[in-house]
Amino acid sequence: MRIAVDAMGGDLGPRAAVAGAASAVMADPDLDILLFGPAGQLDDEISRLPRPLVAAASSMDVIDAPGVVRQDQRPAQVLRGEQTTSMSGMLACLARGEAQAGVSAGNTGALMALARRALGMVAGMSRPAISTAIPTRREGRCYLLDLGANVEVEAQRLRDFALMGEVMARRIDGQERPRVGLLNVGVEGTKGTFSVQHADELLRQETALEYLGFVEGDAIFSGDVDVVVCDGFVGNAVLKASEGLARMLVRRVQATFEAHWSSRLVGWLARPALARLRGELDPVRYNGASLLGLDGIVIKSHGSADTAGFHYAVARAAREVTHDLPACLAQELGRRGSVG
Amino acid sequence: MRIAVDAMGGDLGPRAAVAGAASAVMADPDLDILLFGPAGQLDDEISRLPRPLVAAASSMDVIDAPGVVRQDQRPAQVLRGEQTTSMSGMLACLARGEAQAGVSAGNTGALMALARRALGMVAGMSRPAISTAIPTRREGRCYLLDLGANVEVEAQRLRDFALMGEVMARRIDGQERPRVGLLNVGVEGTKGTFSVQHADELLRQETALEYLGFVEGDAIFSGDVDVVVCDGFVGNAVLKASEGLARMLVRRVQATFEAHWSSRLVGWLARPALARLRGELDPVRYNGASLLGLDGIVIKSHGSADTAGFHYAVARAAREVTHDLPACLAQELGRRGSVG
Repeated sequence: MRIAVDAMGGDLGPRAAVAGAASAVMADPDLDILLFGPAGQLDDEISRLPRPLVAAASSMDVIDAPGVVRQDQRPAQVLRGEQTTSMSGMLACLARGEAQAGVSAGNTGALMALARRALGMVAGMSRPAISTAIPTRREGRCYLLDLGANVEVEAQRLRDFALMGEVMARRIDGQERPRVGLLNVGVEGTKGTFSVQHADELLRQETALEYLGFVEGDAIFSGDVDVVVCDGFVGNAVLKASEGLARMLVRRVQATFEAHWSSRLVGWLARPALARLRGELDPVRYNGASLLGLDGIVIKSHGSADTAGFHYAVARAAREVTHDLPACLAQELGRRGSVG
Repeated sequence: MRIAVDAMGGDLGPRAAVAGAASAVMADPDLDILLFGPAGQLDDEISRLPRPLVAAASSMDVIDAPGVVRQDQRPAQVLRGEQTTSMSGMLACLARGEAQAGVSAGNTGALMALARRALGMVAGMSRPAISTAIPTRREGRCYLLDLGANVEVEAQRLRDFALMGEVMARRIDGQERPRVGLLNVGVEGTKGTFSVQHADELLRQETALEYLGFVEGDAIFSGDVDVVVCDGFVGNAVLKASEGLARMLVRRVQATFEAHWSSRLVGWLARPALARLRGELDPVRYNGASLLGLDGIVIKSHGSADTAGFHYAVARAAREVTHDLPACLAQELGRRGSVG
């Protein structure tokens, strides 16, 4: 299986992307990686791989792409610009069928627009939705979508988000009957905007769906729902607030132990547990986000993803390839005929 | 100073309200409390106050109000109904000037509607906004508003939220120049809905305001902004998601120590620190929320507030009385003439 990786555009530069892809290869030796970016820079990073990852170098090839899509570029500008960037190179490679999935930590809006043009959509979807799996209580996960810049979303799009998220949870994670909730300001049927009210009506007509009705924000983490649907403005705000809160709480945990522990001995003994905790307390950062509805597999890695973050994004891409997510969506939603 | 407390309507029943009010009196002996609810039930709760709070009973009076506003009642229904509830009794007492502030953990929509009718608005505001102080890094706090059910908010209302939140941070918390941010899906000027774009233009014209422009969700907890403004749908979703995440993380912290600690001795030694941590890890639950823009002071306590939660809500009410928040809003925003 070959995964194309846009190695540029993440906050930590190509080192995190190259090391993360290498780490994913070490965990899954069937993976081949194509790295897109300035060849000299990427070759340098490969030669500097830490010793435990060196063996992965033989499964990684570099494709020279001199340009980089900047974070502050507008999608329309990127669409019009020269297609010599690492992002457009990665997507063109997917479009030619030379890789089965792509990963990028770059500009989300540009990635959505370029991917849509390069790969097209399935099942009558108009634009990609973005979804990520958020860890919940009881070792569960909840897909939250949309997280993209799709603001002011009409009811039909919210319904489509629900259907796509449900297919992903069922086909990729093997959940038998994913429970779907529509995010609202109250669980009572009378609350919320017109589009949320209308989307609720549409979803109640989807008799094959395990639709729970309205849920509130805390349901995302409760473990009681598998797919939570909202517009891209709300989803983006919720996801970023959760990241900020998790970061703050990590500091509080550390400060609590540093400030209050009655003896240094106990603080020292607690160190391994605290180290593990730090890794667990940032639950939203380490999962790639799927661009759903594309006729292809593209994973958006978090902008600030480190080696572990890229590793997970590449592994997520491989998982969606194994289950052929676009074919699942096309088959299940295209056949319905009512989406789009 | 006299605070009127609607003792009914919280998830934990009148016991938490009565004990919380008593706890606030113990901390501030200048407080008098009027408790509204079924007299027999409230007298019972007063007689059952735990020993450290018994002395507060002499500062607490019960006003019989047999009815209770249920959580599932619509505001319009409550407005039309008989005004014999603990909530309407508390508000009528405020309107008559027999108490300087009111506290309720009941139905938020009903509280907003009844309070608006009973007390009226200041400075041309059309409806109350709801705001709460969220703990941030570096021991700071950030006011988030609106948290109410004001969905689909136009730009002028977002501007009003910003102005009211700024007055609260400056006059109540004594911040010299509160920094105000407008929540959006990106900090770039080109993103977001029409109303967010338009509100940004309006806020740029408020030259007296320390307006930072667009901020993303993680800014709420970063300590870099003192007031974050959004519509009530987004604010409600963000607040409730934060509550859910905090609860999940509390469980993870506990599980980490229970599962991994190499010795029971260390786990036992860590117990006091973990207990402190549990209290700190639920930062959004223990602050009362202010109903801003009313010609009166009403604090909404969290529906699931326990004794400590009610204590903080009563203390918050007292603080707003001391600084006469409605007069500050009327003076600063009324004089401007451009609000409403």
